[in-house]
Amino acid sequence: MSFAGIIDHTMLKADSTQATIKRYCEEAKAQKFASVCVNSCQVPLVADELRGTGIKTCCVVGFPLGAMSTAAKAFEAKQAVADGAEEVDMVINIGAIKDGRLDFVEEDIRAVVEASKPAIVKVIIETCLLTDEEKTAACKASVGAGAAFVKTSTGFSTGGATVHDVALMKKAVAGKAKVKASGGIRTPEFVAELVEAGADRIGAGDGMKLI
Amino acid sequence: MSFAGIIDHTMLKADSTQATIKRYCEEAKAQKFASVCVNSCQVPLVADELRGTGIKTCCVVGFPLGAMSTAAKAFEAKQAVADGAEEVDMVINIGAIKDGRLDFVEEDIRAVVEASKPAIVKVIIETCLLTDEEKTAACKASVGAGAAFVKTSTGFSTGGATVHDVALMKKAVAGKAKVKASGGIRTPEFVAELVEAGADRIGAGDGMKLI
Repeated sequence: MSFAGIIDHTMLKADSTQATIKRYCEEAKAQKFASVCVNSCQVPLVADELRGTGIKTCCVVGFPLGAMSTAAKAFEAKQAVADGAEEVDMVINIGAIKDGRLDFVEEDIRAVVEASKPAIVKVIIETCLLTDEEKTAACKASVGAGAAFVKTSTGFSTGGATVHDVALMKKAVAGKAKVKASGGIRTPEFVAELVEAGADRIGAGDGMKLI
Repeated sequence: MSFAGIIDHTMLKADSTQATIKRYCEEAKAQKFASVCVNSCQVPLVADELRGTGIKTCCVVGFPLGAMSTAAKAFEAKQAVADGAEEVDMVINIGAIKDGRLDFVEEDIRAVVEASKPAIVKVIIETCLLTDEEKTAACKASVGAGAAFVKTSTGFSTGGATVHDVALMKKAVAGKAKVKASGGIRTPEFVAELVEAGADRIGAGDGMKLI
């Protein structure tokens, strides 16, 4: 089977040019990927390139550290949606998870969920920095705050998606959110394993290698 | 000589806890560092810990990719200053430099400089991703936009400060801004070399090793 329809074709490098972003949009249109996922400064360009195609414009927020103030994350999301983003991939406040401040974590997510409407929000929990217990707590906070997806990784930290984490997250959200696997996904075989474990969406820096 | 007074004691890890941030503040007070530099979610805590000490609260913005929308960077800066930040270290839009869109780069910086007043702004140009020509252009855009400092590196990309880059940046700003060296600075000897090359401020993830 083809996984094209569940792939977020993703270009988040700090030095990505407009020509590169346009190429990603062309590839997404040709392959019918789910979305093109970019940093917020690129949203107007991507929304323009994808208009009328049914392929979503996806924007990361608070990326990749998740350590921005809540107000700044919410503002970035609201601006991105005003610029044309239809999906928002935010990063949780990882330090607050480590501190056990779960109410803060949930409020931080909720502020972005509210600011992003009508766009959906995926919550990147950065699994490589969390214990299994913390991953479960992060998933529950995401569901509580109204997120549409939980997502494994930024691709900018110490590790990416694993079958173990996707299965754990699928269980933690208990059908109340979908799961996106991302980070280090470079073969169709690995995509198949992640989907088998419960992944509903795949984020990949080179979607062209996966189809 | 002691370099303590020119060191920005810096903790930007995604998973840094409140206890870690408080320790950095205690160390800064004991050593009389120039500032404690943190992500924007930590600014209220740091400003509270450092109140009345003369040690500055420094906040990164658009960090570390620099690829947020201009409006989002400016908002994050304004919120950080309202929360107590006295110095703002922003990241330039590196993709726009690669595109040769220097007017955009300068406007992006100017928006943060205006939003940050009365706080000063340091502009991180991420030297490891730029050619020497691009580094010079980034420095000139920073000066044109009213930045107080140009700064070499985020510490989250492919390289950190070098003597070559500090000297190049010192020349490019032509006395109209100061130079901060950051990224991979781990010995007093390297600090001395960077200061000799023109560095006015040093950013370091472990300032305690440098004094």
